[in-house]
Amino acid sequence: MQSLKVLGLGVGAAALLGLGIILGHFAIPKGSNQPDPQDLDLEILETVMRQLDASRMREDLRELSREPHLSSSPRDEALVQLLLQRWRDPVSGLDAAEAPQYEVLLSFPSQEQPNLVEVVGPTGDILHTCRQREEDLTGEQGGPDVVPPYAAYGPPGTPQGLLVYANQGTEEDFKELQIRGIKLEGTIALTRYGGAGRGAKAVNAAKHGVAGVLVYTDPADINDGLSLPNETFPNSWHLPPSGVERGSYYEYFGDPLTPYLPAKPSSFRLDLTNVSGFPPIPTQPIGFQDAKDLLCNLNGTSALATWQGALGCDYKLGPGFRADGDFSADSQVKVSVYNRLELRNSSNVLGIIRGAVEPDRYVLYGNHRDSWVHGAVDPSSGTAVLLEVSRVLGTLLKKGTWRPRRSLVLASWGAEEFGLIGSTEFTEEFFSKLQERTVAYINVDISVFANATLRVQGTPPVQSVVFSATKEIRSPGTGDLSIYDNWIQYFNRSSPVYGIVPSLGSLGAGSDYAPFIHFLGISSMDIAYTYDRSKTSARIYPTYHTAFDTFDYVDKFLDPGFSSHQAVARTAGSVLLRLSDSFFLPLNVSDYSETLRSFLQAAQQDLGALLEQHGISLGPLVTAVEKFEAAAEALGQHISALQKGSPDTLQVRMLNDQLMLLERSFLNPRAFPEERYYSHVLWAPRTGSTVTFPGLANACSTAKDTDPGSEAWAEVQRQLSIVVAALEGAAATLRPVADL
Amino acid sequence: MQSLKVLGLGVGAAALLGLGIILGHFAIPKGSNQPDPQDLDLEILETVMRQLDASRMREDLRELSREPHLSSSPRDEALVQLLLQRWRDPVSGLDAAEAPQYEVLLSFPSQEQPNLVEVVGPTGDILHTCRQREEDLTGEQGGPDVVPPYAAYGPPGTPQGLLVYANQGTEEDFKELQIRGIKLEGTIALTRYGGAGRGAKAVNAAKHGVAGVLVYTDPADINDGLSLPNETFPNSWHLPPSGVERGSYYEYFGDPLTPYLPAKPSSFRLDLTNVSGFPPIPTQPIGFQDAKDLLCNLNGTSALATWQGALGCDYKLGPGFRADGDFSADSQVKVSVYNRLELRNSSNVLGIIRGAVEPDRYVLYGNHRDSWVHGAVDPSSGTAVLLEVSRVLGTLLKKGTWRPRRSLVLASWGAEEFGLIGSTEFTEEFFSKLQERTVAYINVDISVFANATLRVQGTPPVQSVVFSATKEIRSPGTGDLSIYDNWIQYFNRSSPVYGIVPSLGSLGAGSDYAPFIHFLGISSMDIAYTYDRSKTSARIYPTYHTAFDTFDYVDKFLDPGFSSHQAVARTAGSVLLRLSDSFFLPLNVSDYSETLRSFLQAAQQDLGALLEQHGISLGPLVTAVEKFEAAAEALGQHISALQKGSPDTLQVRMLNDQLMLLERSFLNPRAFPEERYYSHVLWAPRTGSTVTFPGLANACSTAKDTDPGSEAWAEVQRQLSIVVAALEGAAATLRPVADL
Repeated sequence: MQSLKVLGLGVGAAALLGLGIILGHFAIPKGSNQPDPQDLDLEILETVMRQLDASRMREDLRELSREPHLSSSPRDEALVQLLLQRWRDPVSGLDAAEAPQYEVLLSFPSQEQPNLVEVVGPTGDILHTCRQREEDLTGEQGGPDVVPPYAAYGPPGTPQGLLVYANQGTEEDFKELQIRGIKLEGTIALTRYGGAGRGAKAVNAAKHGVAGVLVYTDPADINDGLSLPNETFPNSWHLPPSGVERGSYYEYFGDPLTPYLPAKPSSFRLDLTNVSGFPPIPTQPIGFQDAKDLLCNLNGTSALATWQGALGCDYKLGPGFRADGDFSADSQVKVSVYNRLELRNSSNVLGIIRGAVEPDRYVLYGNHRDSWVHGAVDPSSGTAVLLEVSRVLGTLLKKGTWRPRRSLVLASWGAEEFGLIGSTEFTEEFFSKLQERTVAYINVDISVFANATLRVQGTPPVQSVVFSATKEIRSPGTGDLSIYDNWIQYFNRSSPVYGIVPSLGSLGAGSDYAPFIHFLGISSMDIAYTYDRSKTSARIYPTYHTAFDTFDYVDKFLDPGFSSHQAVARTAGSVLLRLSDSFFLPLNVSDYSETLRSFLQAAQQDLGALLEQHGISLGPLVTAVEKFEAAAEALGQHISALQKGSPDTLQVRMLNDQLMLLERSFLNPRAFPEERYYSHVLWAPRTGSTVTFPGLANACSTAKDTDPGSEAWAEVQRQLSIVVAALEGAAATLRPVADL
Repeated sequence: MQSLKVLGLGVGAAALLGLGIILGHFAIPKGSNQPDPQDLDLEILETVMRQLDASRMREDLRELSREPHLSSSPRDEALVQLLLQRWRDPVSGLDAAEAPQYEVLLSFPSQEQPNLVEVVGPTGDILHTCRQREEDLTGEQGGPDVVPPYAAYGPPGTPQGLLVYANQGTEEDFKELQIRGIKLEGTIALTRYGGAGRGAKAVNAAKHGVAGVLVYTDPADINDGLSLPNETFPNSWHLPPSGVERGSYYEYFGDPLTPYLPAKPSSFRLDLTNVSGFPPIPTQPIGFQDAKDLLCNLNGTSALATWQGALGCDYKLGPGFRADGDFSADSQVKVSVYNRLELRNSSNVLGIIRGAVEPDRYVLYGNHRDSWVHGAVDPSSGTAVLLEVSRVLGTLLKKGTWRPRRSLVLASWGAEEFGLIGSTEFTEEFFSKLQERTVAYINVDISVFANATLRVQGTPPVQSVVFSATKEIRSPGTGDLSIYDNWIQYFNRSSPVYGIVPSLGSLGAGSDYAPFIHFLGISSMDIAYTYDRSKTSARIYPTYHTAFDTFDYVDKFLDPGFSSHQAVARTAGSVLLRLSDSFFLPLNVSDYSETLRSFLQAAQQDLGALLEQHGISLGPLVTAVEKFEAAAEALGQHISALQKGSPDTLQVRMLNDQLMLLERSFLNPRAFPEERYYSHVLWAPRTGSTVTFPGLANACSTAKDTDPGSEAWAEVQRQLSIVVAALEGAAATLRPVADL
């Protein structure tokens, strides 16, 4: 569009100036030398930074979090319409926007039969009933759309048994109870959040015959020990005694019935009997007020010091209640779960700004839309940032003053809270196209956990662009410090290449970036503002997944003035523009060399001796890492040379393809047959503490107690060959494109 | 290089003509209009066609087939050096050439203990011994490097039992024997080539307790019935009585010990006990002269008419020999196999001509180098073509008169005869790079089966470029007919789009194209000259895989004058140049619409009713096919518009990427867990006669005899969803790149 207009001008000019111009136009070969290819425009960048408006994000957040918007609820669909309207706005919208739906399996508590946790006396009388909903402290917790606390995908059932305390419900925790001689068969296990994943607590418990699981949040883990009403929300940012963390207890991600296939109405769906990853036994989360009533009345020996919390009593292990407590000694706990699985339509909202020069290269930026209750922080703080970034870019677009070099795709994902479902189905539906064309994926879920510092998770190639962006943006509330200079004070590491730099975290499966990095192999990042860890030990912001995660909570406690929202919007916006508009793609693939070298050193130090004992040499891995380092080094010199010269668009396109596609070369769909979607041989889930190649580490920990020549040791060798082949393939991607 | 020189001129001109020129140069946007991008040069094409020299191919073939060059033998390695020398020649060589090696598992007969097939009388006396080597008819069959006939990967063993005749050794054949009440347990089954794959004969036999398998070539199947010495080579092209077809009896392809991993010395290797795909029982091929001695003495009832052959007797089924024959009634057949598995180094030879404009786009052209014996036809007739094409292109390159737009990669694969091993390991080692950058793969294995007509196998996108090329080349020995006009007389079909056109065959796994199309999803083709089917019913050229496949055989009988070699060289060369040099990639992806529509119609006709009975609708498949057709149609119009205008290089690059990557979008590595390497959902192996989507067809044939609600019916639905998702993904690849 734009280029055509300019061409029009050019032709007009040519007509006026005659022969010389025509000569000039044709005598100088096109494509072979481009004095001014469309590149990042610093004025546009500056304008975008300036126009990202904190007060608009505040107003958007107020609207987004006005009502609960649980996945596939009427309000969730209303927000779909809000996003479509914004992205189709003639003055500040995008080129196009759509809201495709998937038919996915969700889990909800029954409205007729609320889930129930009771203490039942020996004669069957009910001695205590836990709260079924949170206390209505701000007038927002009582509404009909506030879903009662529950464990999504937890099976229905009404187990009853003696109560035991199982700490965090890890495998070690249950082993400890076993060692202590505590009979777990048929018991109800009370566990606290943290340590193990939600679903893992029930899986571990069931292995020991436990009949039901309760989960609560201990004030020691979330409130820095505080638990009194006057110390908690609405009087502070802390979690009130009745607050309950909801969540998905499904162990994988994506729609449970359609793994690897988009959940279209006509798609093949697994029979429920063939679905794996759901908790095996009924599970229910409760607040710490109720947990205290149960835990502080337990019988038995004292739990380890590390198992104690801040409920103001000595945590005993059980089984059952003590005689001199509130309940008679042989009272039991009954957990009544009536959750139901339902096929629901969930929408993604997709918007696009078409690239002017390379429309077939995509920069993706997304966040989920669905919440558990009002979700002011999770996810609306991120959605407010998404809306503001799209408003500012859309306005420049509609004015005709800017169009990105590459295409921008903005996404509001559905059903993330149930297991990254909307984003995963999207990657399944457009697998080839996305894998071939996507430059990077930017995720901003919760944009502000707290207002102390930036926190970024991502793969090595995105480090440099995040650094460049954050060095140019002023950090809120810290005078003249840049976001970068503030960040480095909170998270830093010593890089052999750069010295002290901010440290990026690695990407797990905590938000919608997971299918992009693990399944598609697209360089990804997650951006947020977060805590000063010296000021709080809270596991996460205290009202996470509760009915107290409201607009006032953000406005009063997390980010008064919304300057942290603005900082995240500027960071995401700047990274987005640099990726979409830079002539040379700002992905520094050579930063992978540092990661590979550190993975290698860790493997040599922690696994080398064990492997040697079994006649397995790390030599080929050393060689592969060296080949990668050499190829990355040489490519770096090639880039500098190109940048000094005047490369044509095709030369840079070819280079950019190498940079874009490097991450893909680490994929092997056959590397981890047990791990759904995980194909990236460097970032798959890793057991054990050694930060190294996950397949190798996991295989070693399985093999180490088996005989030489076992299948487990063969798997170690297979995993070693898989990572060597991946690194050699990656090096081949970086070498000169016409090398054999 | 070239473009820089021109730039120099341009800048000089600019300096001379001053302001106007500078204005002209800068006012008119660069990249938006390119009067003459590097495109296919018809003069160069004409020169190449003219210079491809029949007599040089004759001389090269003489040298290539002078000695036996079994995979990894000294002579095979000598030919590696010959190829390296040619491709590194300063006057006619390529930019670079290399010969990387893999360490692969091959199978050879023992030199100390030759394999043996004997008739053993009741008292243990040897009544008959089959030939252990072919008769030395031309002085070329007696040499020490002539590997005796054997079944590669057939296990060692010395089974002995009554002989039965099992026709082609298909499942149906053994069922038929069972129905006839013939006890198969412990027998030796005599089978003839054809019908089932080599390895399948032993697999089927073992299921019925057969102890050993013999395989021979019936004169009815290979010699149009002729079998007398004076009717066969060296007196005609027919197979002599002592000729034996060797071959690999391995059921998969690629190195058996390193599936999905390149067979580097350090790579993980399967334990032999975990290797699948080898024949389960000892197997040995014999000549029809020996087969006659065995078959014509069999006892029992007559075989079906369709089981009869041309050995000049009534084929009986056995078991055992008849009393009034050459052997006593209760004589048995003893098969002694002493084959050994060996890890050997096998080389690929790779050569490259670097692209001038898009060096990161590869056109691959290859053939295997290893033979069973002298291999004049298989593979040297193809290698001679490869050498001549590379000589002509290399000469233009070294003269500086030509460099392709894209990179050309030429390959001489090793160990193809053992199961496409060299090419498969190459695709495993460079998976990502090849998948991202390869435009197409051209295979010319046996270049001349016979000299009647062209025969091409390939996927739909290559049809158009093969048509364009062959319309411009004169067909040998047919006056003024083009290769196309001659071809259409032998193989044709009625296309709803084009009317009567030559018909391309589809790609199985018969040569090195298999890993490229099935594993990498690269558009591929196989080119050869072949028979007039009205003149012979030979299964393949009669001396296939025997010691009679020699230079004189080609020179006297298959292609005197080598005009068919020249026709194939011109066809391959023209296709190669069109793919490497055309500004617009000559891959007509819309030709897939016709294939998908015909697959759909076949599914509706042959499977529709059955599916409906089980409540499975083909509706979503219909929709997916329609979406593909619409997207392909629209893309076609976009291409025409671009070609009429003056598109810049980037616009065409983006379009070409869509064309190149379409084939990839049909891949699903999880579609066929049982089928090693097969990921292309349209071309995976298909059981049954319906030419349709293989996954769907195979699942239906498994499910049709099972209960509704069986796992087999669930698999039908899964396969349907897999193909629907693939077609939807393919359509998304063809739609405008910035569509949502």
